Amino acid sequence: MTPLSSWAPRRPTGEHTELVDLVTLDDIEEAAARIRAFVLRTPLLPAPWAGDEERPLWVKPESLQSIGAFKVRGAFNAIGHLDESVRTRGVVAYSSGNHAQAVAYAAAVYAVPAHIVMPEETPNVKVAATRSHGARVVLCAAGQRERVAAEVVEETGGVLIPPFDHPDIIAGQGTIGLEIAEDLPNVDTVLVPVSGGGLASGIGTAVKALCPNARVIGVEPELAADTAEGLRVGHRVDWSIEARNRTIADGLRSQPSELTFAHLRHVLDDVVTVTEDEIRSAVVKLAARAHLVSEPSGAVALAAYRKGSSLAGRTVIIVSGGNIEVALLREILGA
Amino acid sequence: MTPLSSWAPRRPTGEHTELVDLVTLDDIEEAAARIRAFVLRTPLLPAPWAGDEERPLWVKPESLQSIGAFKVRGAFNAIGHLDESVRTRGVVAYSSGNHAQAVAYAAAVYAVPAHIVMPEETPNVKVAATRSHGARVVLCAAGQRERVAAEVVEETGGVLIPPFDHPDIIAGQGTIGLEIAEDLPNVDTVLVPVSGGGLASGIGTAVKALCPNARVIGVEPELAADTAEGLRVGHRVDWSIEARNRTIADGLRSQPSELTFAHLRHVLDDVVTVTEDEIRSAVVKLAARAHLVSEPSGAVALAAYRKGSSLAGRTVIIVSGGNIEVALLREILGA
Repeated sequence: MTPLSSWAPRRPTGEHTELVDLVTLDDIEEAAARIRAFVLRTPLLPAPWAGDEERPLWVKPESLQSIGAFKVRGAFNAIGHLDESVRTRGVVAYSSGNHAQAVAYAAAVYAVPAHIVMPEETPNVKVAATRSHGARVVLCAAGQRERVAAEVVEETGGVLIPPFDHPDIIAGQGTIGLEIAEDLPNVDTVLVPVSGGGLASGIGTAVKALCPNARVIGVEPELAADTAEGLRVGHRVDWSIEARNRTIADGLRSQPSELTFAHLRHVLDDVVTVTEDEIRSAVVKLAARAHLVSEPSGAVALAAYRKGSSLAGRTVIIVSGGNIEVALLREILGA
Repeated sequence: MTPLSSWAPRRPTGEHTELVDLVTLDDIEEAAARIRAFVLRTPLLPAPWAGDEERPLWVKPESLQSIGAFKVRGAFNAIGHLDESVRTRGVVAYSSGNHAQAVAYAAAVYAVPAHIVMPEETPNVKVAATRSHGARVVLCAAGQRERVAAEVVEETGGVLIPPFDHPDIIAGQGTIGLEIAEDLPNVDTVLVPVSGGGLASGIGTAVKALCPNARVIGVEPELAADTAEGLRVGHRVDWSIEARNRTIADGLRSQPSELTFAHLRHVLDDVVTVTEDEIRSAVVKLAARAHLVSEPSGAVALAAYRKGSSLAGRTVIIVSGGNIEVALLREILGA
């Protein structure tokens, strides 16, 4: 696969998603070999507490990655795939969330500079976490992230590591699917959060290749359900950022790119949407029964599972991240 | 090793701990084979967030076992080691805590009856959790648990499964030590909670056999530090139950038996004690940084690590359990 250093030419330029090269199982297996030494091989946790014999449940806790989210998988794969001569110039990312920490952490492990562009309103705790990995944080005005990141790329010669819109990112996230297929080869249903779509694209590709009878179901907040709508109408739809910002699931406010949308069309059997109350309730349930701290975005797959469903069979949910402020966790637990 | 069905004759009868047969690495390896299909092989989670380069930290999250605590390991080993003809008569345990759920769950998997004796003041949620595995719960007056359990054994012909005072229980808990040695063979220090001592006896035996240069350090609440005192004076000491009940760490209010104390003398290099505030603060830290819900008893090893120490080197802490009421978790997070 072409590494990120030649990223731009590979990017599809229209809505003709048939022209997009999709990530393959081989790409994902390559990614697995590349990131193995750096990323936690998460267990698949049996969850008999779910109590539904028709739909036995397992939890894939990506919240246990050392930065608290699955994003390290894509970051290590993308950065690890760069030519060393390119990588030493450093990496650039724009993110106020888990991708920022993932890129900062991976860059630190590879001992290359990281420049992370974050909006000025980013909570201090996230800025501090990113800096704690040795990254340089560049604060910018709201809505200026992409422009400032481009300037930083220009200045530093670093490589932009996108949060989801690249095959190496998709392949990295897809290693979760390999692990599910290895641990539970007869899985019937996989429920996976959808935002920019890198996670669902990667997992869906791996699971469909290795467990062809399994269903892969995306999960979105009702308040940020652009992918559910897009797959229904057959093309990407654009929800305003104001609309998407309504959900408490702050990690699920992005929208797929052409590249990820093309993957989602191929690999998702359906998208389920969940309400804000269902998300909050799932955070509580994960704490009380799975003993996992999840961020709201990380809990949507459990929310979807708990809605009940006609989908019988062995079900895996992805708990994608655990980065939640203690004050918000406390508030949700008290509701 | 003699299975539980011939338990009584094996029990040591005096303080002459030299006469006690200690559990061996072979016993623990046998236990590992016996419980493999039923118990989660927990990962060892790197914890770079601890931020101490002299003492890199890993977390062994036994809170992720499906009943939320390490106790399933000993329960599955003890019940699995019974002759089938004996096991079918059923099992009996007295516990208001994690051992109750562990025995109920293991009995359900083996499809044998479980009778669990619990004090009347046990919180409903714990009674319900035990019943949810299909166990019969026998409520009794405070302080009557052992007497009532003996009656239930008499009535039912079931086998008493003790919470820590048996070689099969110790060997089962010791499988955690095997996994640590496999995942981090050059571990320098293992910090493990001590109450009845089954967990520390088993882990200590495995770690000392496989990693002879590693230190194994017990951790107790200051308010229930009978083992710290006992090892200092060279024999078991008795703290009143009123004294031990002062700690918030409700899983650490038991005291070693002759059998476990004999093991602890052999395998522990030291015992560190922690305050109630340090325990609460460790619960918060595990939630915020490791994304793990821990009960107070489960957090004491992190509390000990955070006190700082002259013990440099690669350190593993055991997070022994995650069964905490949501209201208490919320209170601790708000402090």
